[in-house]
This record gives sequence, C-alpha cells and structure tokens, in this order.
Amino acid sequence: MNKIRTAIVGYGNIGRYALQALQAAPDMECAGIVRRNPSKEGCPELENYPVVSDIRELGKVDVAILATPSRKVEETAVKYLEMGINTVDSFDIHTGIWDLRCALDPVAKENGAACIISAGWDPGTDSIVRTLLEGMIPQGITYTNFGPGRSMGHSVAAASKPGVIKALSMTIPEGKGIHSRQVFVELEEGADFAAVEKAIKEDPYFVHDVTTVKQVPSVDEIDTHAHGVKLERFGTSGKTEGQKAEFNMSINNPALTSQILVMAARAVTKQKPGCYTMIEVPVIDYVAGEREALIRKLV
Amino acid sequence: MNKIRTAIVGYGNIGRYALQALQAAPDMECAGIVRRNPSKEGCPELENYPVVSDIRELGKVDVAILATPSRKVEETAVKYLEMGINTVDSFDIHTGIWDLRCALDPVAKENGAACIISAGWDPGTDSIVRTLLEGMIPQGITYTNFGPGRSMGHSVAAASKPGVIKALSMTIPEGKGIHSRQVFVELEEGADFAAVEKAIKEDPYFVHDVTTVKQVPSVDEIDTHAHGVKLERFGTSGKTEGQKAEFNMSINNPALTSQILVMAARAVTKQKPGCYTMIEVPVIDYVAGEREALIRKLV
Repeated sequence: MNKIRTAIVGYGNIGRYALQALQAAPDMECAGIVRRNPSKEGCPELENYPVVSDIRELGKVDVAILATPSRKVEETAVKYLEMGINTVDSFDIHTGIWDLRCALDPVAKENGAACIISAGWDPGTDSIVRTLLEGMIPQGITYTNFGPGRSMGHSVAAASKPGVIKALSMTIPEGKGIHSRQVFVELEEGADFAAVEKAIKEDPYFVHDVTTVKQVPSVDEIDTHAHGVKLERFGTSGKTEGQKAEFNMSINNPALTSQILVMAARAVTKQKPGCYTMIEVPVIDYVAGEREALIRKLV
Repeated sequence: MNKIRTAIVGYGNIGRYALQALQAAPDMECAGIVRRNPSKEGCPELENYPVVSDIRELGKVDVAILATPSRKVEETAVKYLEMGINTVDSFDIHTGIWDLRCALDPVAKENGAACIISAGWDPGTDSIVRTLLEGMIPQGITYTNFGPGRSMGHSVAAASKPGVIKALSMTIPEGKGIHSRQVFVELEEGADFAAVEKAIKEDPYFVHDVTTVKQVPSVDEIDTHAHGVKLERFGTSGKTEGQKAEFNMSINNPALTSQILVMAARAVTKQKPGCYTMIEVPVIDYVAGEREALIRKLV
C-alpha cells in the first residue's frame, strides 16, 4: 500500500501530537517536519524524521498539516497550495471561515490541489454533528456548551499580547450555549497588567464573552489539556415535537485536534481540487480502510 | 425555487410521517402517493395529493421514498431506478446492506439515477456518528445501546408470521451493546402460540438475541413510538488514551425515520449516479439551504 506522505508544518503542541497520530495511522506516514529553525534539539522523537525549513527538501509530499496559529493559516495554505500540495488546518475563528474558504478555493483549483479548513473539533467534528442534527430535527434549537477546558485559539491570542510570557484561557460553560472566559497570564517583569487586560478583552476572540483576566506567577502550574463539549438539540422532526439529541465528549484537546487534522489529511487526498469545510466531505473519507470493510463495520 | 418533487411509495406508518416531513420541508414537495390499492379512504390528509398505483401517473418525479418493508426494498428500488427515478429507503438488515449496495449500484449507474440505502437512524444517522467517532478515536470500542423502544423492522418481521394479527417487538438495552428482545403478539383465533414463538425466534432478525415472546389480547394497548439510543466510544486519539464520546437520542421513532428519509431524498438529488450509504454522502447535502448560509450557521 502507498502510504499518504504527510508533512507537519509547525512543531508546537499540535505538531507534536500530530506526529503521534500519524505514527498510529496504518495508512499514513510522516514525510518530515517544516520549521522556521530546522532543529531537532530537545525533540528526541524526531530522530528518524527530516526537519527542514523548505518543504521541497522532503521530496513528494501529498499533504501538509498546518500546525500553525489560525492567523497564519491563510498565507501558509496559499503557499503550499500554489506548490500543488494539499493542506489541512484547524483555523478556529468561526466568523472568518467562509472568507477563508472563498480565499483558498480558487487557489486550490488553479493548482489542482485540495484543502480542508477548520478541521478541529469545533469548528470541525462538532460542525458535522450540528449539521446532522439540523437535518434530523429541522425545527429546533441547538446549544453547544464547551468546557471547562483550555481553549487553544484563545490562549494563543492572549499570549500574543505585548508583555505576556504565557497565557491560559479557560472556557467556562454557563449553560444553554453561554460561556465565559477566564484568562490566566504570566507577565514579563515590568509589564503593565491593565494594558494586557484591555488588549485581551478587546481582541475579537474575547470581545463577545464575559472575560476575566488574572495575573499568575506560573501558567504551567495550572495548565491542563482536558476539555469537553455538550452539544444539544431539541425540536421537531416532520410535525412531531419533543425530539431530543445530544453529543458529549470528554477529551485531551490537542490530542483530539491533531487526530482530526490527520483524519482530514487522509480525506483531503480523496477530494477534487477545491476548498472544503469538514461538513462538505463524506465521513467515510475520514477513516482508514477499504470501502467494503468500513460499510460492513460501521453502517 | 424548484422544489424537489418526491413520491411516497407505500402508505403505512412511515409513509404517513414522511408526508408530514415533506410538508414541513421548505425545499420539497409531495408529488403523490403510490399504493397497490390507490385509495384515499380514511386518509383525510391526502385530500390534496394524487394517490396512484403507477408512479408514471404523477408526472416528473425526482425521488421516490420507499416506505416499504426492508425485504421489499431491493425489487422496489430496481423498478424505480430503471425508470431513472432516484430512490431512498430505510433498509435495516445490517448484514444485508453491502449486498444491497452491490445489487443497486450498477442499476442506478446504467439508468443515470442515484439511491441512498439504509437511511434511517440505525443504520443511517447512527452510522454517520459511528464513522465520525472511529476517525476521532481510531483505537477503541464502540457500544451502540438501543431502547427501550419499539423496533419497527423487528415488529414487522414478527407480525409476518402465520397466525399473528399484530406484533410489537421491544428492544431492551442490557448495557455495553447487548440487547434482548421482548415480543408481544396478538394472535388469530386458533393460532398455535408455540409455532409462532418458534418462527419468531428462528427469524434472522431475532436469532442472535435473547428473545422472549408473549401473547397479549391487544398490541395496540401497549404500543409506543418512543425510542432511544446511547452510542458510546472509548479509546485513544493518536497515542493519548482516555478519550470518550457519546451520542444520545430520545425520539419518536417513525417521525425520525421518516425525517431521515426526507433528508436522504434531498441529498440523493445532489449525488452522481450510483448507490450510496449515508456515510458516503457529505452531511451538508442532507440539510435545506444555500451552501454559504449553512457553512456560516453550522460550521
């Protein structure tokens, strides 16, 4: 079997877990890691993998997993799509997804490549469940309740503010789809806490939620990868009221996000050129195995 | 907007609920009902719909919803596919799904039509959730726990035995994917209960489960449409253990099954010729609305 040759672009938290998910996948292999500074220092798990600053040094690559912050996704995806390399990302700014799709779709098509965007658990697999429940219970209300848990996108956004060394943004479910944010920041000596607090609260990631910011001596001491979701829908199928469905998860967040990026990397090789969100791809394409065996096992 | 013209073939329980789901769908219309005996007697809700014995009397039809017992699905689907009419069904014999797909796929392709088979909640939407969870937690165990509730397929199978007037088969969850069956039968005068019990227990629907059969004076008095499922998966994402997800529903069974047939009827018009299970179709195709609006709302 020809394994799907996959490069990991960026080697932070998500990149590390993505390597593990690739190693565990029977049909995929890690072609190498792309980092600005192509060093293996402190990363014994990279011993058998090339680490490069330019993906072209890796030979044929089928897919690039963009393990980069959401705000870097568009420029990075364009770069690889223009080389004809499929990409997947976990872009997580809900309000920017349609625009990102519009920006990448023509680039992908012009270069005979495909990309799956916003492939995390929300947006991502939760979106698939929301869409399914919308079909099953077309009239009704959906609540997506997150946490308590660390939001990676929000933590990165908070950590990007001047004066912040590390940040942890906890998502607190207040019920029926309402959340608040608790942000813990570790500051550089002499940093102005009030300015940091203001910058965080005004960031688009935080501006719509009740947000509290607290300074702590060490973020590492309180950090966690545990997270969860409770996605509920109540309503009417046809003309019958009282239908109810819910989807619950209790998970390690970067492990699941990275696993979903790997699922999407598998699926993207099966799509026609263009840009897709996860709800636009048949779910069978996300899993390893032959069609007959999968249908016999899962349907 | 051109609505999707949909015929309902068979007008039992599922056919009646399917009419309601079509009436509630903004993008679909019921072209009419196909029955062996084309009568509206006792069905005031059919006043404004043609009831015919031959689908060709209905003019252009985009999709036929086959609201027929599972064992009639193959011959009925072949008949409509050969006319170039797309079909959907809720064929629910898990062990026969791959063979049905193999039988219908060439017929559909030769006639430029598409069909979605086994479009109910299990097999069907549960299959989508199982496939999604398999991708997210590739190493692990899935348990699908049904009920308590009436199984329509099992009830029809039990009612088909000689001497049975009506039957109700209740699915009882025993935990961790194990179920027992409680079958209640109302018998014709002089029918041999022991023979009925034996015929039911030997039926492929029942042969793998602990089944008890009980004679009752009236099935209608104890019947219910309430049903439920708890689908669980535990395991490992990448190399991280302890991942956990579950999908729960509490529903009116024929209302949901019929709604899913209508979802599939919408989706089948968007597929290339061929035969599909629900996991082979992008979930966005199942819901009403324009792509941009759906992505903005659901992703």
